[in-house]
Amino acid sequence: MSHQTLLRCPTRGRSMTEITAQVAEVVAASGIATGLAHVFVQHTSCSLLITENADPDVRRDLETLARRWAPDADPAYRHDQEGEDDMAAHARSVLTGTSLSIPVGQGRLLLGTWQGIYLWEQRHQGHTRQVVVTVLG
Amino acid sequence: MSHQTLLRCPTRGRSMTEITAQVAEVVAASGIATGLAHVFVQHTSCSLLITENADPDVRRDLETLARRWAPDADPAYRHDQEGEDDMAAHARSVLTGTSLSIPVGQGRLLLGTWQGIYLWEQRHQGHTRQVVVTVLG
Amino acid sequence: MSHQTLLRCPTRGRSMTEITAQVAEVVAASGIATGLAHVFVQHTSCSLLITENADPDVRRDLETLARRWAPDADPAYRHDQEGEDDMAAHARSVLTGTSLSIPVGQGRLLLGTWQGIYLWEQRHQGHTRQVVVTVLG
Repeated sequence: MSHQTLLRCPTRGRSMTEITAQVAEVVAASGIATGLAHVFVQHTSCSLLITENADPDVRRDLETLARRWAPDADPAYRHDQEGEDDMAAHARSVLTGTSLSIPVGQGRLLLGTWQGIYLWEQRHQGHTRQVVVTVLG
Repeated sequence: MSHQTLLRCPTRGRSMTEITAQVAEVVAASGIATGLAHVFVQHTSCSLLITENADPDVRRDLETLARRWAPDADPAYRHDQEGEDDMAAHARSVLTGTSLSIPVGQGRLLLGTWQGIYLWEQRHQGHTRQVVVTVLG
Repeated sequence: MSHQTLLRCPTRGRSMTEITAQVAEVVAASGIATGLAHVFVQHTSCSLLITENADPDVRRDLETLARRWAPDADPAYRHDQEGEDDMAAHARSVLTGTSLSIPVGQGRLLLGTWQGIYLWEQRHQGHTRQVVVTVLG
């Protein structure tokens, strides 16, 4: 049994947008009691992650670290047609990943208390990102 | 067809604990011959990984690298209420991920010979971590 | 419903090999209309990633960054029996992951226009890598 929905998620440039509620709605609509919810971005310059949903400083500090893992405008980059954040965005997407999967039990996402699902825009500019949610049971 | 079990896994502070046998038991109990085994931690300061199960120095060296990827007590961090390992633990969890999925064939995990499944405690203190194993087929 | 195939993929030493077409063929052969395609490498010194399929400089720049994330022949490593790329290969595999999952809709992979599926050989020497593709619906 499977259920699939395409979400269109606007972002405001490099930052994380919580999408836990949207994913939970797809799970509820699926009618699936036990299984998996899979979330996928159809892009190579944004990513998905699960992290703490309480203190916003966690997301701020992740941003600080990501600038070290893949700096903007690094002189070693060859791929820079779309600007100084172009290659950094691809690398940050590879490090943090384009998909997530979360168990579903008793018809709902089995996230821990402090876990939120975030879409991480890796470009400086905002975009509308396509997110495919698939529920299997 | 789906089967789900919650495991409670004790950790001894920052280190990796192999959980391959526990996941294999859930797969055997599921009776599912072909499909996927999905493993998920309900926390944001530990993670799951697949790495070499032979030489323990691999895990030691991963620990050495992780201290560079996300140092403890970095002066740039703002999130430090729970101590010098607090933010580093969240970042190490994001880099290595809160879920894994492994193919199931002929009723067992299709891991390579040298692959083990590890729970990586990212805090200095030990915890009992909740791990949800879901088998789909 | 599930369908599973083992692919044997030759690599030419440290570099990325696109395997999108092979995964798409397994999805077509499965006859599954809606669900997930899961790709898994049975090794700890190579990995799988989704990244831009247009400009090859993206893969070149990812290689540049990976050499910083986990340098070859780092004096801090203890695990080096198989050469200066041994431990670096394990670390690069952990950072980028041994599995991917992609939604399937209308019987095909729901990748974005610029997304390709790559097998990243992390050793200097070429190998034949075992890749398990599982389609669930």
